[in-house]
Amino acid sequence: MNNEKIPYKIYLSENELPTAWYNLRADMKQKPAPLLNPATHQPMSSEELSAVFCDELIAQELDDTTPYFEIPEEIRNFYKMYRPSPLVRAYCLEEKLDTPAKIYYKFEGNNTSGSHKLNSAIAQAYYAKKQGLKGVTTETGAGQWGTALSMACAYFGLDCKVYMVKCSYEQKPFRREVMRTYGASVTPSPSMETEVGRKILAEHPGTSGSLGCAISEAVEKASESDGYRYVLGSVLNQVLLHQSVIGLETKAALDKYGVKPDIIIGCAGGGSNLGGLLAPFMGEKLRGEADYRMIAVEPASCPSFTRGIYAYDFCDTGMICPLSKMYTLGSDFIPSANHAGGLRYHGMNSTLSELYHQGLLEATSVKQTEVFESAEYFARIEGILPAPESSHAIHVAINEAKKCKETGEEKTIVFGLTGTGYFDMVAYEKFHDGKMTDYVPTDEELALYRSHLPKVD
Amino acid sequence: MNNEKIPYKIYLSENELPTAWYNLRADMKQKPAPLLNPATHQPMSSEELSAVFCDELIAQELDDTTPYFEIPEEIRNFYKMYRPSPLVRAYCLEEKLDTPAKIYYKFEGNNTSGSHKLNSAIAQAYYAKKQGLKGVTTETGAGQWGTALSMACAYFGLDCKVYMVKCSYEQKPFRREVMRTYGASVTPSPSMETEVGRKILAEHPGTSGSLGCAISEAVEKASESDGYRYVLGSVLNQVLLHQSVIGLETKAALDKYGVKPDIIIGCAGGGSNLGGLLAPFMGEKLRGEADYRMIAVEPASCPSFTRGIYAYDFCDTGMICPLSKMYTLGSDFIPSANHAGGLRYHGMNSTLSELYHQGLLEATSVKQTEVFESAEYFARIEGILPAPESSHAIHVAINEAKKCKETGEEKTIVFGLTGTGYFDMVAYEKFHDGKMTDYVPTDEELALYRSHLPKVD
Repeated sequence: MNNEKIPYKIYLSENELPTAWYNLRADMKQKPAPLLNPATHQPMSSEELSAVFCDELIAQELDDTTPYFEIPEEIRNFYKMYRPSPLVRAYCLEEKLDTPAKIYYKFEGNNTSGSHKLNSAIAQAYYAKKQGLKGVTTETGAGQWGTALSMACAYFGLDCKVYMVKCSYEQKPFRREVMRTYGASVTPSPSMETEVGRKILAEHPGTSGSLGCAISEAVEKASESDGYRYVLGSVLNQVLLHQSVIGLETKAALDKYGVKPDIIIGCAGGGSNLGGLLAPFMGEKLRGEADYRMIAVEPASCPSFTRGIYAYDFCDTGMICPLSKMYTLGSDFIPSANHAGGLRYHGMNSTLSELYHQGLLEATSVKQTEVFESAEYFARIEGILPAPESSHAIHVAINEAKKCKETGEEKTIVFGLTGTGYFDMVAYEKFHDGKMTDYVPTDEELALYRSHLPKVD
Repeated sequence: MNNEKIPYKIYLSENELPTAWYNLRADMKQKPAPLLNPATHQPMSSEELSAVFCDELIAQELDDTTPYFEIPEEIRNFYKMYRPSPLVRAYCLEEKLDTPAKIYYKFEGNNTSGSHKLNSAIAQAYYAKKQGLKGVTTETGAGQWGTALSMACAYFGLDCKVYMVKCSYEQKPFRREVMRTYGASVTPSPSMETEVGRKILAEHPGTSGSLGCAISEAVEKASESDGYRYVLGSVLNQVLLHQSVIGLETKAALDKYGVKPDIIIGCAGGGSNLGGLLAPFMGEKLRGEADYRMIAVEPASCPSFTRGIYAYDFCDTGMICPLSKMYTLGSDFIPSANHAGGLRYHGMNSTLSELYHQGLLEATSVKQTEVFESAEYFARIEGILPAPESSHAIHVAINEAKKCKETGEEKTIVFGLTGTGYFDMVAYEKFHDGKMTDYVPTDEELALYRSHLPKVD
């Protein structure tokens, strides 16, 4: 391997774009536990899921044996507008850190949605269109998923109805406006449009909403509207499947230059980015072909891996969605106002949870002030303004590179840079003005929410 | 030429990054008129300029005979973090328009400053650093230039002092915050920090500032501070020189696939992007090697090419900068509140002005509501949310492609997509809400400002 030949940015050609998504579950001996019907505690059937989800997406969700799913040509053509995304060699960062480590990051922010969310949004919109649906509903908190889905729906001419957590709707008018630019209707949640929304508003007139409530409204709207289904941007295994394009491209780019990573790092909220990035590497590990350290980074304010328990829980606060076995803090845990909105989720994808349970994946939690310190440091050196979510991975990558400096080890570190922070400047401003806080839940709090978990045998 | 082989995005490799900027003036028989001292009306000498500008940049500014300037390695290394930028084949747009035209755009928005401004900012910061300066001062209106310069200064460890037009400072807090993230100090202008600022505030206590005033403050600060110089993001010929990297890459990418454009389109404010994009093509035209239609697109609210006159005028409203011979509306012309802040400039780069005067370049003006219609249309089809400035070029490119549909001509259209609109959502919101207006100055107004032009023999 000749390091001098590695460019600052490795761009694969369009011909090297993956032709199939990789389904990590196919290589797992111990599969992730199935989704359960919340009433009967029996595994959810396709029929039960079909009132809410699109048919082909249900098939992908339930399939834990097929290793590859071909990416339809229509989706590949859309991917070509912004993929393959660059794998960047962080030469400037390495030099500044004076570390022998080699640092790479897969940058998913070079598209208008500003994040990796578009990889799954376009797939979900495609299958909805193929099924002959009129449109889809969803919720959005920070707004990246809502933006991505709006773009995807505009491309396929689908109606897109987004329930946006009311406080985000009010605090992030620009996010809302981007979604409108792509033709989506954006409703602050809770709203008077749904039964659950009206009920919540009656009980809590001044509420600023929550992701759980927005999910409930979107699910209700999809179930009751003819020709609509509900789509979700993380947590589900179908999302990890689509996001595997990140890891497949990363691996192809590294292979091209004969580079084998030692450590792979990703931020983890619901798990969509991390699960996508590590998929082909974890596949090799599961098949005994290679070994890698893989690290999930979560906010200390919402530590589902590091302080949650592995149990069946509801995916939503409204407790209307199926039960999933996962690392969870309890579905009524409301994370503090961390600015990494995309990481404020009480649970974790079931595949990643099972892998963590088996000890194949590490996890660590970090505080948001130190995360923003690393974000700003990185922005000044590498020229990219990172999203707060992505900055969790940056922070741990920098720490690992510093350790290499101490030990003299030339480790190769790869991390996922999931998106840009253009719509997060309020958070950066708080950081600059010294007004950022680091709330960490107490053991007593966590024990309380844990006690609310559903009892599943 | 086989169209099917052309990818959605043509990425040159790092090895194909231009090694020298192209100085268009070297190929002009009739050179652009020199800058004049506003007091003596004699050509400005290097010595006179050196109190305000960096030495090597002055040399570039005054040199109209050297065709190529080598790009220093340090600048090339920075370029590698975001260049070569993609030349995109707009397959989706072509299909939607059902046009036989082939449409390409050079996308300069894939960097954190969000625009092409970074190409010159890093060069100017480099020469300032090389001269041993402590820092630079500048003004910013819309904020793209200020952001780019902040990034460049952070990279070279230079102090960066930005005077931001007060109304922008208040209306675009996120832009301000990005600059702070890169360590710049951002002062709302007019301020109490400078004599000219204090004078203006005394005379107009409630003023929300203007670009002209911000320039005057930045120039004063640079002249009075030890180890500081003033830098500017457009209008000057040194900026066009640096921006030639856009055109050189575009031409290299097209040549690679044997594509010869028929029409080249760019938005024009001060001329930095347009001059950079068309440089090598205009060079061929000047040398009689090829012919192209080249179109400058300006806002109808600030029509310096289409309704201005070719005369010596001040580059700034404060009338302290040198006189430049250019198409101008008069240096005290205050454009209406068009949302394309980067195109609100009373004059035009002197090289482009001379080329337009010689009939080598066309110009057209468009109204902002139709520009936003095209911007939204483009965003939904091509997936990129364009800046209002860039959308001027998009609008005319779409119109040209529609003409091809009528005539059946398979013309190849190339336009410059200078940047993204993430910080322009207030403008998009006005457009969505039907609150956007189309102010066009009357002939009487223009005649009035024209009568204020300095008298130069």
